[in-house]
Amino acid sequence: MDGGVCAAAGFLAGSLKAGIKRVFSEKDDLAVVLSESPCVAAGVFTQNRVQAAPVLISKKNLGSGCHRGVVLNSGNANACTGEQGLADAEEMCRLAAEKFGGSQENYLVCSTGRIGVPMPMEKVRDGFDGLPERLSCEGNREAAVAIMTSDTHPKEAAFSFSLGGKQVKVGGMAKGAGMINPNMATMLCVITTDAELDGKLAQQILADVVERTFNRITIDGDMSTNDTVLLLGNGKSGVKIMEDDAEATGAFTEVVERVCADLARMIVGDGEGTTKIVEIDLRGASSLADAKKAAEAVANSVLLKCAWAGQDPNWGRIVDALGYSGADFDPSAIDIFYDELHLVKGGQLGPADPKKVKQVAEKQEFTITIDLGGGDATYRVLSSDLTEEYVRLNLSE
Amino acid sequence: MDGGVCAAAGFLAGSLKAGIKRVFSEKDDLAVVLSESPCVAAGVFTQNRVQAAPVLISKKNLGSGCHRGVVLNSGNANACTGEQGLADAEEMCRLAAEKFGGSQENYLVCSTGRIGVPMPMEKVRDGFDGLPERLSCEGNREAAVAIMTSDTHPKEAAFSFSLGGKQVKVGGMAKGAGMINPNMATMLCVITTDAELDGKLAQQILADVVERTFNRITIDGDMSTNDTVLLLGNGKSGVKIMEDDAEATGAFTEVVERVCADLARMIVGDGEGTTKIVEIDLRGASSLADAKKAAEAVANSVLLKCAWAGQDPNWGRIVDALGYSGADFDPSAIDIFYDELHLVKGGQLGPADPKKVKQVAEKQEFTITIDLGGGDATYRVLSSDLTEEYVRLNLSE
Repeated sequence: MDGGVCAAAGFLAGSLKAGIKRVFSEKDDLAVVLSESPCVAAGVFTQNRVQAAPVLISKKNLGSGCHRGVVLNSGNANACTGEQGLADAEEMCRLAAEKFGGSQENYLVCSTGRIGVPMPMEKVRDGFDGLPERLSCEGNREAAVAIMTSDTHPKEAAFSFSLGGKQVKVGGMAKGAGMINPNMATMLCVITTDAELDGKLAQQILADVVERTFNRITIDGDMSTNDTVLLLGNGKSGVKIMEDDAEATGAFTEVVERVCADLARMIVGDGEGTTKIVEIDLRGASSLADAKKAAEAVANSVLLKCAWAGQDPNWGRIVDALGYSGADFDPSAIDIFYDELHLVKGGQLGPADPKKVKQVAEKQEFTITIDLGGGDATYRVLSSDLTEEYVRLNLSE
Repeated sequence: MDGGVCAAAGFLAGSLKAGIKRVFSEKDDLAVVLSESPCVAAGVFTQNRVQAAPVLISKKNLGSGCHRGVVLNSGNANACTGEQGLADAEEMCRLAAEKFGGSQENYLVCSTGRIGVPMPMEKVRDGFDGLPERLSCEGNREAAVAIMTSDTHPKEAAFSFSLGGKQVKVGGMAKGAGMINPNMATMLCVITTDAELDGKLAQQILADVVERTFNRITIDGDMSTNDTVLLLGNGKSGVKIMEDDAEATGAFTEVVERVCADLARMIVGDGEGTTKIVEIDLRGASSLADAKKAAEAVANSVLLKCAWAGQDPNWGRIVDALGYSGADFDPSAIDIFYDELHLVKGGQLGPADPKKVKQVAEKQEFTITIDLGGGDATYRVLSSDLTEEYVRLNLSE
């Protein structure tokens, strides 16, 4: 369904151009997602030791237990900005409270953009003056555009499910593009729902879903200082998700996962300069830790990502990446498939027709299934190719 | 001094074009380095779990304790080639013994090139027929060229020192280019010396030196199935290096390290598509493990390597890489210098003039000193930039 963060009942969004970017840009750069009534919130944040001011302030404010909305900006990460950065992130929450009600602690804040540059607070303050009139229940797309950095298109998803005759909606928006890696990267994501949530359960569901979606994508192996995934639930649907109600919890989790999986796939597909989505389906590992190590080494191999850009169904580089991954396996037991084609059998060239394998490598999306032949553990990661365009985009900020 | 692997007395080298590459190439691809008399050998090999046939055979033959030389080829890695690959690598040693004397076990073998393709043994056999007449004490440069793959120039180094009025020479050749990473990558290196060595001591010295040189360079974070560094000592100088003679051992180790350090730097400088050598000098870590993690995260950050290609003295990406490195540190204690310019102080923008920092980033070689401010542990790594040319070169093999 349409609607992104406004799909769920009682959520509004809006944005405008505050001029936060140092270089001139036509794009909006300040956005807000607001619940008409107080809501419950959960958050998952970057595991980077260096955490941006908005991450630290959002974590702190999550403790308040009562929420109204999220303020987001692109063009400045407010990271490595010291005490002033913390004060600026707090002021952004305070400005939101002044304009939209509640107190500073009721707001969360997300920033993305250049690191180490002080937030231009005068522009942010002026921006807030104009935000209230931009707010609407159709502002979702505008807000999704406002948080874009090098993304080429906005990313939104929404799904619904019925429980006891009532419809529950879950929608979200995300931005990604550069620095995407397991454990997230410069990615921001806000998910809204009109389900009624318990704070602790919401946190647990969000953490589980993020582990299976946003933590399984990689573009360049980097992880940013600002990564944030937030979930807001305002209860407007009249459906309460209780921990002891397995049916409701299961249905809700499934829909949150669909929203997150869709957004995660959009992020990989829109990675800087990427032209392909490559799914790594790792099987037959002797432990989950080994499966993860092996899958991530393949997904992050710069050499392999270049080969994918060249539509080269290279398997030597796959075997090589498995070999240095640190995973335990028998090299002579490895099987590798490009989609269903058996390219490597027992560690050596397999029976697949090279021309057909090449055709798979030419597709925009394909799956590389790797069977280590040593156990039952599995792991999946979404990766992408690495193109000259990626390098060009990252020569400087 | 000149001479590469032929600098030391009693070493010969030679090469020819056997036609091992599947695609037509004008370049020699089969080489031999030979000692006129039996010699002692030591070897350090890839830590990749998938090890090419020549690595496995060389490891086995090292056990013989008596050596004559090394056979090397480019154009085919003889990796992921199963039992046939092992038989082929052994046959290469046997062919060398037939042509140059001794037995199969006296020879070591190194291969580099495409993975998973059977070695074209008919061409190799024909090649061996022509090798003896190519052998000379001036064949070092030819051999250094023959082992090149995507290297743009051959890599040789040689130094000497005097002990008790006698001169000892140490020389070597290497190839690198792609897949260079700590713990080596598709790099081959042969070092020869006319010192008389004990096998156990030679192994210890080589392992120590490799740890401080070839294991401290990175181009693309990959590690190959074929990496090999060999040291041969034939005693022709009449100088014996004994473990209990600290002066001799120290002097010899220092010269081996100079040869390896020079070759390692050449490898980084000639990495595929690279235009810059960037030295990461990590200080102030609370442990060696943390220093290594932090330095390697910075040296391997794809985003940073792109910034260096763009001559952008980016520090946000440095702090970000430190943050996800897993090293323990206080973000507000980080100092970063581009050469001597103080770019980051206490985790925030420092006093350096941005224009001057930019000039450093425009140099072909510069040092980024990072002080974590938390202890005495240090680590150095040589890295390089990542250019569009690198991607172009690796679109396919």
